[in-house]
Amino acid sequence: MRVGIIGTGQLGWMMIIEGRKLGIEFNVLGSDRKAPASKVASYFYEDLDYRKFVDDSDVVTAEFEHVDPAALEYAQDKGKLFPNKESLDLKLERHLEKIYLKEHGIPVTNFHVANSAEEAIRISDEFDESILKTSKGGYDGKGQYRKKRGEKLKIDNNDQVFVVEEFFNYDFEASIIACRTKKGQIIAHRPSYNFNQDGILMYNYAPCDDFGMFEIAKKLMNSLNYTGVMGIEFFIRDGKATVNEYAPRVHNSGHHTLSGSSISQFEMHLRSILDLPLDTPRLFTHSGIVNIIGRGIDAGIIEQLLSISESKIYDYGKEPRPRRKLGHINLTAESPDELLQKISTAKKIIYPDSRIH
Amino acid sequence: MRVGIIGTGQLGWMMIIEGRKLGIEFNVLGSDRKAPASKVASYFYEDLDYRKFVDDSDVVTAEFEHVDPAALEYAQDKGKLFPNKESLDLKLERHLEKIYLKEHGIPVTNFHVANSAEEAIRISDEFDESILKTSKGGYDGKGQYRKKRGEKLKIDNNDQVFVVEEFFNYDFEASIIACRTKKGQIIAHRPSYNFNQDGILMYNYAPCDDFGMFEIAKKLMNSLNYTGVMGIEFFIRDGKATVNEYAPRVHNSGHHTLSGSSISQFEMHLRSILDLPLDTPRLFTHSGIVNIIGRGIDAGIIEQLLSISESKIYDYGKEPRPRRKLGHINLTAESPDELLQKISTAKKIIYPDSRIH
Repeated sequence: MRVGIIGTGQLGWMMIIEGRKLGIEFNVLGSDRKAPASKVASYFYEDLDYRKFVDDSDVVTAEFEHVDPAALEYAQDKGKLFPNKESLDLKLERHLEKIYLKEHGIPVTNFHVANSAEEAIRISDEFDESILKTSKGGYDGKGQYRKKRGEKLKIDNNDQVFVVEEFFNYDFEASIIACRTKKGQIIAHRPSYNFNQDGILMYNYAPCDDFGMFEIAKKLMNSLNYTGVMGIEFFIRDGKATVNEYAPRVHNSGHHTLSGSSISQFEMHLRSILDLPLDTPRLFTHSGIVNIIGRGIDAGIIEQLLSISESKIYDYGKEPRPRRKLGHINLTAESPDELLQKISTAKKIIYPDSRIH
Repeated sequence: MRVGIIGTGQLGWMMIIEGRKLGIEFNVLGSDRKAPASKVASYFYEDLDYRKFVDDSDVVTAEFEHVDPAALEYAQDKGKLFPNKESLDLKLERHLEKIYLKEHGIPVTNFHVANSAEEAIRISDEFDESILKTSKGGYDGKGQYRKKRGEKLKIDNNDQVFVVEEFFNYDFEASIIACRTKKGQIIAHRPSYNFNQDGILMYNYAPCDDFGMFEIAKKLMNSLNYTGVMGIEFFIRDGKATVNEYAPRVHNSGHHTLSGSSISQFEMHLRSILDLPLDTPRLFTHSGIVNIIGRGIDAGIIEQLLSISESKIYDYGKEPRPRRKLGHINLTAESPDELLQKISTAKKIIYPDSRIH
């Protein structure tokens, strides 16, 4: 079996590492032969060679949604693309996703769509506080502006679609890693509590109560006729779950499934797109991660982090850059308190000068 | 970091898969570019290029003990070989291992050393029942002859050293996967119950009570000044552990640590030889494996095996041959009974025509 992965980042890298046990070979499509997934793939294909890449793969999946639509279209036409192009396309423009979710009865925050920055700023005054997001190209907190009613805001690049979301004062953030098989079976990992900072996941841990997340996942995945793993981010307030956004792929908040679970999100995704049997995962113990963002992973930090009991390091092998995800540490513990203590220790090691403790 | 592995079999393959997360690159030394570890290594070196292989590696380890002594010697001279050559050399001739264990106060079965088959047959009559083993080249049950007192036995190839062991009527077999760090810290996975048939491990599961195995492991590893993971096989009778043999490497009976443990034996071995921190592993749940021996792993069997809940398949990608280990299935369960049920189901799927159920 040969699986083609569109994208060469760390999500593809972990998918390849996790899939090797099944004897799967991996093709990757991208532009960087030194990217994480390129280095462990069986075969690397340049972006422009997407036809050969698809032809040489039994199934094709994406580890990143902002990819060449021609490659997706070609893979879909060949009946090889999982999840389908529709599920990926909704992620290319934020307003399409929001409208889709709302129209399918899935709880989302109040929002308006604006056709320019000026219009977005004007509409935003309907809400006490709002977040203006460019519809295209935004992830990891990019292209987002927070604003109170009446406040002034200057946005360059006026001519684009914005989503103006009412600021949602949630109790905490959470996510679910769900999976739908080709036969329509839906299973999920236990949800996790997530802690984002400046729009990037800093750490998270499982299990978290469900708060209706699994039902929402089922509704969304069925409506999209989805195949594969999906990560869905939620705001939880007063015990109710409101969707922030979904990711049509394996997700950073599911990396904890690499430790302490009966199956990782990566193997789960592969088994679903290859039409192999799956069952509901079991979380063996309390499990979480801390992301390593914007700083190099040197021998000193590895030594310190691995000194935390039951820790594992995933070093993506990327060049350090501000706000770039370079790795993460997996942690497991016998109780939530012990796990939070370990997470705190890891954060102090990774971010010694930061307020993020 | 670059780790050199002598040998290209499935043990090296799993070590590479497990080590990728740490950003390690792997060199392998062998004769077959299509062998399991060769296919996932960063660089393959032909046996004769062992000098370059060692020079290009930060540390060197072996996944198989029957290897070119020149390569081991060169690696040891460069200060890169873990575990050391002495620990590996004892495994080249069975009588050396037996004598070493006995001289170091480690409990072994009664034995004699004979310099020919004729002498072995003669000496064997001192015991009611005995097993005659060629001193060289025996593993997975090869070169072994069972004999009762007075019984006739014909052995070709007379001129070799034999170990004549008194037949030991044990209650069951067990093993421990222990690890000694460069600083002399010794930790171990919970022992497992092992079921061998015709000298090959058929299935095993953990945890098993200790019966003194950890103390024996510590004594042996300290006396050898050992670094890395060692698998030690035991006979258990009347609650006491007697050593059958040790393996100076990761071991088939430790594959269950790939599921349901806080760390696998493979990552444990890598962390110890790279002088990275380690702590005592935690077994999250009941965990076992069934070996897939001598039969092809096709889509049908994968489909059936993965239908068992909490199962994982490791497909080594080797050509089927009688008595050849081609893969294994990992199984976890909430109770020993449930695990044994799953093991039984897996055995029926893998060996439908066999008495091994």
